[in-house]
Amino acid sequence: MPPSIEDRLLELDIVLPTPKPSAARYVAAQRVGDTLYVSGTMPIGEAGPLWKGTLGQDVSIPEAQAAARTAAVLVLAHAKAALGELGRIRQCLRLEVFVRATPAFEDHPQVANGASELLLQALGDKGAHTRFAVGVASLPFGVPVELAASFAVD
Amino acid sequence: MPPSIEDRLLELDIVLPTPKPSAARYVAAQRVGDTLYVSGTMPIGEAGPLWKGTLGQDVSIPEAQAAARTAAVLVLAHAKAALGELGRIRQCLRLEVFVRATPAFEDHPQVANGASELLLQALGDKGAHTRFAVGVASLPFGVPVELAASFAVD
Amino acid sequence: MPPSIEDRLLELDIVLPTPKPSAARYVAAQRVGDTLYVSGTMPIGEAGPLWKGTLGQDVSIPEAQAAARTAAVLVLAHAKAALGELGRIRQCLRLEVFVRATPAFEDHPQVANGASELLLQALGDKGAHTRFAVGVASLPFGVPVELAASFAVD
Repeated sequence: MPPSIEDRLLELDIVLPTPKPSAARYVAAQRVGDTLYVSGTMPIGEAGPLWKGTLGQDVSIPEAQAAARTAAVLVLAHAKAALGELGRIRQCLRLEVFVRATPAFEDHPQVANGASELLLQALGDKGAHTRFAVGVASLPFGVPVELAASFAVD
Repeated sequence: MPPSIEDRLLELDIVLPTPKPSAARYVAAQRVGDTLYVSGTMPIGEAGPLWKGTLGQDVSIPEAQAAARTAAVLVLAHAKAALGELGRIRQCLRLEVFVRATPAFEDHPQVANGASELLLQALGDKGAHTRFAVGVASLPFGVPVELAASFAVD
Repeated sequence: MPPSIEDRLLELDIVLPTPKPSAARYVAAQRVGDTLYVSGTMPIGEAGPLWKGTLGQDVSIPEAQAAARTAAVLVLAHAKAALGELGRIRQCLRLEVFVRATPAFEDHPQVANGASELLLQALGDKGAHTRFAVGVASLPFGVPVELAASFAVD
């Protein structure tokens, strides 16, 4: 019997934060039928953005990978809040990765891997996903990376 | 019995335009199974773009909110044309918001709220949706905001 | 009886390449239930990017249309690898088009048509799709266009 997602997170030393209610006019995660949609999620903590800046300018790839990983943990936190338990996830369907970057930046996949690897570590085979990663001009609150995701759920 | 979507639009003084056939090589809205997909939709009227410009440069947040609201009305117009009647909408699933903005712009969520609020006003609880909002370098026809959306439908 | 998708591709002189396994931490295409998701796909060949550059700067619209068409062929190649045969495609649902462009560029739909037309030529009525096209600041490997797609499948 494979380890539960909660066991995996424990092993990764990851404690999911309890999301605060969204201040804006949308919901952080919503399940409709057997699909869970998670809204644009940024590496933001209690006191505000945990990283700010632009790839190719003032944020390194390892920093952006850590930001992407942190945002992916928040994606799981929103999923858990919406589903009750992460064990309801059958498969990650799609990860959408927006990297704030200069026009010359070319390494978006490396940044996105920070999020993809967290999903694979936490969800195992159920974390395998399709993905796109693109370089945007700007992001809310000046963060270097924003993720959106969808999951097939029981 | 809650007011119908048509009643709500009437109360909001919103008359849905009748979309013209798409000139490009795609369809404005398409229903497959119980999902309706709406293509990238911009605040464009009979005579062309209703707003042009870039957030953080020559378009204010209130202007961009009005542009986003207008694009959201067009999303509903395309949904109605595809579905026959908006009463078939069960739930808005996802709103994708692309804001044309300078690299330093940080207030994409405020712009996106112009569209989100229209959906909530028009659709009530069925208008609750997940969303992402990002800052792109450029948009077709120079508009400041472009929306795409999907809906669960009967 | 309409021509098969393989017949159409033959008539278009298109031979689908055999995709190499993804080097990154995601899958190129994944079927879950009756939906096939295809990851961000770029015009990249055996030796690397087939086009590099930015619309409005150093890539012309015809060049970018060819790049978009080439990426769309690769989308079909990934779909075939995931499905076994393209005949399982019931409908193209959504085409997401990211165009690397200067802030002043306005002709994203023309670029996207390079991909849309290939899908319509290859898939016939099943290639009709919704779409968005936006102008991003940068793309992986410096390519001028990236596509993502989803399909309803049998």
